[in-house]
Amino acid sequence: MHKNRHNRSNGLGGDLGERRIIELIRGCLDMMPDAPVPFGDDVSAVALGGGKVAVLKSDMLVGKTDVPKGMSFWQAARKAVVMNVSDFAAKGVPPSAVLVSLGLPRHLLRGDVEEIARGLNAGARQYGAYIVGGDTGEASDLTVAVSVFGVAERDALMLRGGARVDDIVAVTGFFGKSAAGLRVLLDGYAVSKELREVLVGAVFMPQARLQEGLALSRSGAVSAAVDSSDGLAWSLHELARMSGVGLSVNSLPVASEVRRFAEFNGLDALELALYGGEEYELVVTVKPKLWTDAEAGVEAVGGCLLPIGKVTRDKRVVLEADGKKRLVEPRGWEHFKSRV
Amino acid sequence: MHKNRHNRSNGLGGDLGERRIIELIRGCLDMMPDAPVPFGDDVSAVALGGGKVAVLKSDMLVGKTDVPKGMSFWQAARKAVVMNVSDFAAKGVPPSAVLVSLGLPRHLLRGDVEEIARGLNAGARQYGAYIVGGDTGEASDLTVAVSVFGVAERDALMLRGGARVDDIVAVTGFFGKSAAGLRVLLDGYAVSKELREVLVGAVFMPQARLQEGLALSRSGAVSAAVDSSDGLAWSLHELARMSGVGLSVNSLPVASEVRRFAEFNGLDALELALYGGEEYELVVTVKPKLWTDAEAGVEAVGGCLLPIGKVTRDKRVVLEADGKKRLVEPRGWEHFKSRV
Repeated sequence: MHKNRHNRSNGLGGDLGERRIIELIRGCLDMMPDAPVPFGDDVSAVALGGGKVAVLKSDMLVGKTDVPKGMSFWQAARKAVVMNVSDFAAKGVPPSAVLVSLGLPRHLLRGDVEEIARGLNAGARQYGAYIVGGDTGEASDLTVAVSVFGVAERDALMLRGGARVDDIVAVTGFFGKSAAGLRVLLDGYAVSKELREVLVGAVFMPQARLQEGLALSRSGAVSAAVDSSDGLAWSLHELARMSGVGLSVNSLPVASEVRRFAEFNGLDALELALYGGEEYELVVTVKPKLWTDAEAGVEAVGGCLLPIGKVTRDKRVVLEADGKKRLVEPRGWEHFKSRV
Repeated sequence: MHKNRHNRSNGLGGDLGERRIIELIRGCLDMMPDAPVPFGDDVSAVALGGGKVAVLKSDMLVGKTDVPKGMSFWQAARKAVVMNVSDFAAKGVPPSAVLVSLGLPRHLLRGDVEEIARGLNAGARQYGAYIVGGDTGEASDLTVAVSVFGVAERDALMLRGGARVDDIVAVTGFFGKSAAGLRVLLDGYAVSKELREVLVGAVFMPQARLQEGLALSRSGAVSAAVDSSDGLAWSLHELARMSGVGLSVNSLPVASEVRRFAEFNGLDALELALYGGEEYELVVTVKPKLWTDAEAGVEAVGGCLLPIGKVTRDKRVVLEADGKKRLVEPRGWEHFKSRV
């Protein structure tokens, strides 16, 4: 997240972005035959028989790149779990067990370790899961590698690749808060105390939309889904790319706090909402005939489902705002690639 | 592995060993009710219904502490998988899917990443598993966090805590090679070319005893099992502690290459065999009446099962060698604790 601004012509800091690295790796791997979820979706899965699948996800938090200054150990550990749960939410799968490999720098104190453990536990318990195991070792930088396990009906999984032309594009909330919060934390942008609480709070205490994801899966109305952890623009492009379609967005739900923050600081609110990342809303496509089922399901668990556009045949991601059409760029937070 | 010899009075480098850290963490966690495997065993498990369990394991390899000089990226990545598979072997569970969170330093080159990916794939495929997912990010030090998933019959799991008085203690091979190999690599001990190949080979190309573990599980003869990745002495103590028994070892299978290496360099071969670690033999206790079933099962898959002692009521771990009894100390490789 915290932008590493230096570039090098050799090595991974140069031209190779995270996606290209994953493609390189994938090219060296034998693929599991008949995998229930394609490589590259938010989670992996293994068939269990009887229509059920084991769902697995691993994602690692690293101090240097993922923990902004001011975030506590408790918050960092909790976030490491929440960012994994968010991928389960996007697929409509309840997490049941969490494993953690902890890399701990030698200078940490006993109290720091307890704070980390309590943060892990809080992140798991909030979503009904338990920490069931893991290991610890020494590392130069705090490393929290989390793996999550759950069981789902194969047919209930919401994958990235199912969007069809004329489906409704929808999201579970308003965007830009964590991007704005990071501007406050990292670049020292001005902000009122009240706004600061909301924006920085979005960075320090991310919430996974698990109940919303489970409700969407139960509704049977969703054709494709992804979370927005790499940014809304990136998520839209992922849905389009993996479904072989385009998306036209006509209404971008920017958080009101982000509009105020952007206006005060002369920043572009749309930019913050589209290209921020570290946000854990769900981005889904919904079959038009079942829209009310999807909406009612999400509202029944206390959430909201906001329609923002349509799936198109034209394979581009377009934003129509203020009477103008513009292309949404396929960028977002990507490790190893420098960007503003 | 590579001994971090400096100590600090504050922080994890001081008095807190890895086991104490895990106890600290465990004290902060809510425990999953009715977990099929107790916290602290080699793997974790979640009940799937119908007598089956999902088996999960996470363990992380870190460049600084786990990759000795001279080990290639391919070997390091392969080892990260093998050390996890070894825990599956010890429980008698076939691994089916592997996830990997990779932390990559910026100075790595494209070819290094491909080498890592091919090493991961080789480690998984050798044991019948596939790499099904993961993520990559930037890290100061090479970090390979591996998670393995498999399915087993709950009743077929070989746990650490089932050893009973008079059971036979047995191992699947000869000890000390990787400890001796590390002495060669790290401390520059003298060794012939032929010996070097065997000893250093044990460090660079560890082999998990998966077929042996599966055969032992099928035999129904094993009351308790653990792998020897933290050293034979440590494994013996873990079996004793978690089963509430003692162990008396009367025959310590030291590899002949280790005897020769130790003699030439004036080192203690028993010390290398007992306290080395990074070795992936299985250490099991076998019901005496079913010994021949266990032995025949392991031999049928091309392995060997060597009886080394007995389970005792007296809760100590004792080695009887050369007509003398001595206590086996509960030490082995443990991160964060300095030792020779």
